[in-house]
Amino acid sequence: MSKMKLTIIGAGSGYSPEILEGLASHKATLPVEEIMLMDINPERLEIMYHFSKRYAAFHGLDVTINRTTDLEEAVKNKEIILTQIRVGGNQARVNDEKIPLKYGIIGQETTGPGGFMKALRTLPAMLKIAKAVEKHSPNAWIINYTNPTGIVAEAVNKYTKAKFIGLCAGGMRPRTWVEQALGIPYQQVKYDFIGLNHMNFAYNIKVNGRALTDEEFDKVAEVHATIDPALIKKLRMLPSQYCQYYFHKQRKYNELKKQEQTRGETILELEAEIFKAFSREDQVEKPELLKKRGGGGYSEIALQAIHSIYNDQDMWIVANVQNRGTLSFLPNDATIETACLLNKSGIKPLQIDDIPDTVRGLISSVKNYESLTVEAAVSENRDRALLALLAHPFIGDYDLAQPLLNELLEANKAWLGSGFYQTQRV
Amino acid sequence: MSKMKLTIIGAGSGYSPEILEGLASHKATLPVEEIMLMDINPERLEIMYHFSKRYAAFHGLDVTINRTTDLEEAVKNKEIILTQIRVGGNQARVNDEKIPLKYGIIGQETTGPGGFMKALRTLPAMLKIAKAVEKHSPNAWIINYTNPTGIVAEAVNKYTKAKFIGLCAGGMRPRTWVEQALGIPYQQVKYDFIGLNHMNFAYNIKVNGRALTDEEFDKVAEVHATIDPALIKKLRMLPSQYCQYYFHKQRKYNELKKQEQTRGETILELEAEIFKAFSREDQVEKPELLKKRGGGGYSEIALQAIHSIYNDQDMWIVANVQNRGTLSFLPNDATIETACLLNKSGIKPLQIDDIPDTVRGLISSVKNYESLTVEAAVSENRDRALLALLAHPFIGDYDLAQPLLNELLEANKAWLGSGFYQTQRV
Amino acid sequence: MSKMKLTIIGAGSGYSPEILEGLASHKATLPVEEIMLMDINPERLEIMYHFSKRYAAFHGLDVTINRTTDLEEAVKNKEIILTQIRVGGNQARVNDEKIPLKYGIIGQETTGPGGFMKALRTLPAMLKIAKAVEKHSPNAWIINYTNPTGIVAEAVNKYTKAKFIGLCAGGMRPRTWVEQALGIPYQQVKYDFIGLNHMNFAYNIKVNGRALTDEEFDKVAEVHATIDPALIKKLRMLPSQYCQYYFHKQRKYNELKKQEQTRGETILELEAEIFKAFSREDQVEKPELLKKRGGGGYSEIALQAIHSIYNDQDMWIVANVQNRGTLSFLPNDATIETACLLNKSGIKPLQIDDIPDTVRGLISSVKNYESLTVEAAVSENRDRALLALLAHPFIGDYDLAQPLLNELLEANKAWLGSGFYQTQRV
Amino acid sequence: MSKMKLTIIGAGSGYSPEILEGLASHKATLPVEEIMLMDINPERLEIMYHFSKRYAAFHGLDVTINRTTDLEEAVKNKEIILTQIRVGGNQARVNDEKIPLKYGIIGQETTGPGGFMKALRTLPAMLKIAKAVEKHSPNAWIINYTNPTGIVAEAVNKYTKAKFIGLCAGGMRPRTWVEQALGIPYQQVKYDFIGLNHMNFAYNIKVNGRALTDEEFDKVAEVHATIDPALIKKLRMLPSQYCQYYFHKQRKYNELKKQEQTRGETILELEAEIFKAFSREDQVEKPELLKKRGGGGYSEIALQAIHSIYNDQDMWIVANVQNRGTLSFLPNDATIETACLLNKSGIKPLQIDDIPDTVRGLISSVKNYESLTVEAAVSENRDRALLALLAHPFIGDYDLAQPLLNELLEANKAWLGSGFYQTQRV
Repeated sequence: MSKMKLTIIGAGSGYSPEILEGLASHKATLPVEEIMLMDINPERLEIMYHFSKRYAAFHGLDVTINRTTDLEEAVKNKEIILTQIRVGGNQARVNDEKIPLKYGIIGQETTGPGGFMKALRTLPAMLKIAKAVEKHSPNAWIINYTNPTGIVAEAVNKYTKAKFIGLCAGGMRPRTWVEQALGIPYQQVKYDFIGLNHMNFAYNIKVNGRALTDEEFDKVAEVHATIDPALIKKLRMLPSQYCQYYFHKQRKYNELKKQEQTRGETILELEAEIFKAFSREDQVEKPELLKKRGGGGYSEIALQAIHSIYNDQDMWIVANVQNRGTLSFLPNDATIETACLLNKSGIKPLQIDDIPDTVRGLISSVKNYESLTVEAAVSENRDRALLALLAHPFIGDYDLAQPLLNELLEANKAWLGSGFYQTQRV
Repeated sequence: MSKMKLTIIGAGSGYSPEILEGLASHKATLPVEEIMLMDINPERLEIMYHFSKRYAAFHGLDVTINRTTDLEEAVKNKEIILTQIRVGGNQARVNDEKIPLKYGIIGQETTGPGGFMKALRTLPAMLKIAKAVEKHSPNAWIINYTNPTGIVAEAVNKYTKAKFIGLCAGGMRPRTWVEQALGIPYQQVKYDFIGLNHMNFAYNIKVNGRALTDEEFDKVAEVHATIDPALIKKLRMLPSQYCQYYFHKQRKYNELKKQEQTRGETILELEAEIFKAFSREDQVEKPELLKKRGGGGYSEIALQAIHSIYNDQDMWIVANVQNRGTLSFLPNDATIETACLLNKSGIKPLQIDDIPDTVRGLISSVKNYESLTVEAAVSENRDRALLALLAHPFIGDYDLAQPLLNELLEANKAWLGSGFYQTQRV
Repeated sequence: MSKMKLTIIGAGSGYSPEILEGLASHKATLPVEEIMLMDINPERLEIMYHFSKRYAAFHGLDVTINRTTDLEEAVKNKEIILTQIRVGGNQARVNDEKIPLKYGIIGQETTGPGGFMKALRTLPAMLKIAKAVEKHSPNAWIINYTNPTGIVAEAVNKYTKAKFIGLCAGGMRPRTWVEQALGIPYQQVKYDFIGLNHMNFAYNIKVNGRALTDEEFDKVAEVHATIDPALIKKLRMLPSQYCQYYFHKQRKYNELKKQEQTRGETILELEAEIFKAFSREDQVEKPELLKKRGGGGYSEIALQAIHSIYNDQDMWIVANVQNRGTLSFLPNDATIETACLLNKSGIKPLQIDDIPDTVRGLISSVKNYESLTVEAAVSENRDRALLALLAHPFIGDYDLAQPLLNELLEANKAWLGSGFYQTQRV
Repeated sequence: MSKMKLTIIGAGSGYSPEILEGLASHKATLPVEEIMLMDINPERLEIMYHFSKRYAAFHGLDVTINRTTDLEEAVKNKEIILTQIRVGGNQARVNDEKIPLKYGIIGQETTGPGGFMKALRTLPAMLKIAKAVEKHSPNAWIINYTNPTGIVAEAVNKYTKAKFIGLCAGGMRPRTWVEQALGIPYQQVKYDFIGLNHMNFAYNIKVNGRALTDEEFDKVAEVHATIDPALIKKLRMLPSQYCQYYFHKQRKYNELKKQEQTRGETILELEAEIFKAFSREDQVEKPELLKKRGGGGYSEIALQAIHSIYNDQDMWIVANVQNRGTLSFLPNDATIETACLLNKSGIKPLQIDDIPDTVRGLISSVKNYESLTVEAAVSENRDRALLALLAHPFIGDYDLAQPLLNELLEANKAWLGSGFYQTQRV
């Protein structure tokens, strides 16, 4: 089997070295011939290109590293395309975090109005990438970490035929909770998994083939850092950490409101320093500062997925895929986050027997918001955008949705299509 | 065809004369032999019994009027059972209206936590009635106006085989809006209708067989008294008036918060006087005060339904029935409010082609709350009650659901089963 | 309300006077202004035009009768379009009846290979008509009797937006069996109805709102002329008369094989005489010979449907409509024959609760054959035609399907598109 | 991890040594502590027990071999239960093969009326075994080869909660056809797979992650030994070999009719000799005669499944599992043969995107027959048995189903419950 050729789109991000790190540690099973770094920001790209070469040399990763700002060049003749872009950068993120707070609503990168605006900015760029892959490397796989990954996956799955995996470390996290609570190696843990990216639930948890006892489940509930264990015990399911923004809405709002600066603002400050560090000619390791940056650790699951694809190894994995009847209460073409079988031939969701009845409504309303958001992003229709925002369980009130949308769109003029700003029928 | 025998359960209500009024005006097509009045409150029953006899005599309604406090006697050997009960009376209603307001949430008889508590109180009584009908008059129809009628319908449809129609005047109201806006007789108006009781939408509106023009639709939107026409125009559907509690949540909360007394309190004050009026030996007409009482006018649609059944006349009608695949995103055994064909052989929902995508999530989450509420009411399980309340789009926050449930249950101890107050597993 | 304008397409048929007869007897409730007769055969059209004028005058039907051979003129500015065409005439029918017999298979006008060939000939013509109606009279209703009406309905529903009712007298026939067996007026009989045109089953039969007893059902089973009552009693459903070609396949084959001439041959002989009779200047009534012709009696249900539409009267009716979830085991866009609500606003199937499990496979395989046939007719693809024929429960054997298809296509060259005769990929 | 304890039920069969052979060759990854042989025939059990001990010793398989005729003892404290029973033995099989031929229908062990009778005889015994496993070893897996394996799987899945895999070598056979035609190692071949046991189709075939070209597919079609490649090319799917009994019905009937003795008769003759060989004290290898017996080779896939379970290794496998929405046109509780993910936590079907439209009807009708057969076997209801037989695409004719059922039931009196022979309602 020939060695892999792999592209990182959005390679100007400080996260890129994680992938190199992963490839270095898996080089026995994942032989890579070329890593192509692509970014639309030439300065950052240049910094990361040179750092990557130093890093690879230092870690004995024998691979050709190239760079380009051209999308077609980036995707041609590749097997794996990793996408990790951030349209509008962290400046836009700060808006996403701060504007909703004025309206009494959580400001967060992926959940709520913040994620909504991120989706409107990101989807056109991701569709452009996916269509380029579809055209120039139809057999290549896109492995996506760009957030909001569930909405990105829905758009790409609906509007292109590119082979696409929407990954999120969160889908495999319940395994680590079980390991942490019960001392059982995470590899022995499996479960049914329903919902959407950042709005999901693991249940029917099995370790080494047998079901968890009630007592074991209760212990696992206790290690869940973000949601009241009493609620988890009533649900008998392990929610995503991001469900705290739903189940502890007011408490989280109060916390965010009290912060001196948002996460985006902190990162903006750090970024300059981090890139200064990456630029240093003697920097051959990831800068210490990156740890403060946070949000890393996502590459392990990506590497496992690449391994499964490259070596055609059957692999149970939680990912974002088209529903196609898995959850009977969602449309067939909606994207869900669920347990799948991955191998070189594709990724397919597993059938689920007994869908819990307690969170159907919540999942449905978030999915409804997501699908309307995809449609709004593609059509640049302001009315659809308003109905999308209105459909989100955080909003629901027309008198709130209207001024909030107006301010969000105003703040994002630099990154959105003109359609959103044209007068419409009604 | 023999004349009808008909029972009114909850006949001690001041609404009962409406039915007599309707029967009097339809006596040519709906010949009635006996009207049985049943109530568990013997004083009110006695008052309404004597008034009904005077009223019937005065209006030339030649019918035997009987009374009983015994359920079995009430339902035996009848064709039509009208149910209009209020467990806990208007005193309990005042709690339903006032407690949620303390938590920043709308207090309303059928929508939100108020409707939730009303359901917990009402379902056991309605199931008892339906099971009695199932046993003693399996061919009789129950025509229900007891609120929350959608949740009542779901419980009766799930747990009994009684023939049941859950009616609400709201289902036919879009016809009157069209008449009001366009001067087209309401009988010529038909539509697709999706959703739940008090959470529903009419669309694909046709007058005399042709679709409304966009301009006509916009005119109809303008006569909708409770929801911003601009939103209606974006939705291209006519929402139930009760959707105001969702789409104008904060505005309605502020209004309710400002009121000096709740609707329930007003009615409590009026009731004593109204019953004094009913008691008068010379009172042969409905007391004037009833108009202040409000909430009437529901009998016309009930009479139309009885006419359709008695005369086996095919009739397009909006009612609460089991979903059975009509809305693909809801469970088969969920009850929905939708357009049906009614005749003597039964009531069947009509297939719907093109389900709007903008309110699927909202309908799903309210339905989820409703189904969990039915389960909680039947099982008397406090944890299920909490998950039901949590699932309601007004709540969603565990830190809110807990104390709210505690206070609601505490205030309703007199009307709920002991199960809700026992210690549970978690 | 203005008077109706109505067109008969295929008006050169000897069946046309039935419609006039019906209109004459319903003139109080169905006032007609114009009847347009359309046919592509100018000789027959002329005969029927003059006869119709004499017939109308004789029966006091005050209406303008026009004629045309032009499709656009025929459908413009009309409310009702009745379609009753026969592509290839009775000559083609004789082929349909005789060729299958050589292969050990029933030869019949609508069922089996005969119906298959009739569909291939008919669908292009019917689509042309429906598209003309869609374009020139989008608010007009097509009421179709052209066979095979279920397949015709599926094609028109899939490929046009014309308002279309696929009628068949068979759908209402179980009512008459109940009347015949039990003496209960057919108007009091209703039922659930599943399946396809000429492959269907009535069950859950109700008279005057109550279920038939087992003893009553058994009596009804006895009056079913074509299927062994013992089988009907086991099924607890009343099958279409055409189900005899399935359940008594060999017996029917033997009968057909023994006949001296096919039905089509008999009719071919009669037709000349019948048209001679129609031509006579003193002929003001339907010729006696028509009775020998058979196949009539279908106009009553058509007139009832027109009445329901024109007067916007809700009507329970069995018709061929798109499935849209009614039968969960068939595709949404498949056409089924089922109980519907008809009124001026449209025709909608009623939801069915409890679908019998004994005939799902049979219905599925006939529907599969029908849908593949529609696709073959539209694409003129010989391979698809072969797979369609193979899918029919009468065939199933590739070694049989191939030569049979070859002979059928050879015999129908005059009436089919050239695509069927071109060399294809495999 | 502890070593496995494994039971073979029906161990008196000449196939048992295949399992030992497999375990011997996989002993590194599948360490076995105990093999329990169970059979209700003590003579054969004794022969196979002693042979197995000799065989294990000779092949260096260090394992305790036990024997029992007691079901409870057989299943207690085991991890894997292999089931391979034949109720009525090969004598009953000869009836299954010969009786249908008298009626013009294929006589075959698993397909058609033969498989129907085998199911009626086998299901009660298999349900007894599965219930014993459910009770005594709820965590054990049943791996079944007893035919008709699809119907057996449906019964066990519907009526027990035992962990059950219904295997058939046929599900993986398309891999070997691809290897044979294209020289690509079968491990690199994957596909979508729809249908039922012995009535199924592989498509969307991928090798090493990429789709087969049309030319490659055509080459694979050519190596399919039993079905005309021209038909396979039109279908663009690879049918099960058993589909020959459908697609070449008449040809296969003629072949079977011409045979001097049926397969069952041949085996009956061979069996005596084979068991004589097994009995010899110096026999330490499988007798040569077994090759003539045929039907072997099934153990490899069983061993792979055991490996996947024991070592919790994710594995793509085709197996018989509950539908649960995989094929939207079949009931949720129907068992289908489809591609799954197997590991220690369970076996789950993979979602299928694009279900071919050409064989839906055929699959539906065979499934309908199968589900009715399960119901007939469990209820011992003769009428249901008749409707099951009638639903099979080979029958369909009531005049044929009746006498055929009568003769089949008469011939199987020794092995069926008395319910089938009692007078019934109709």
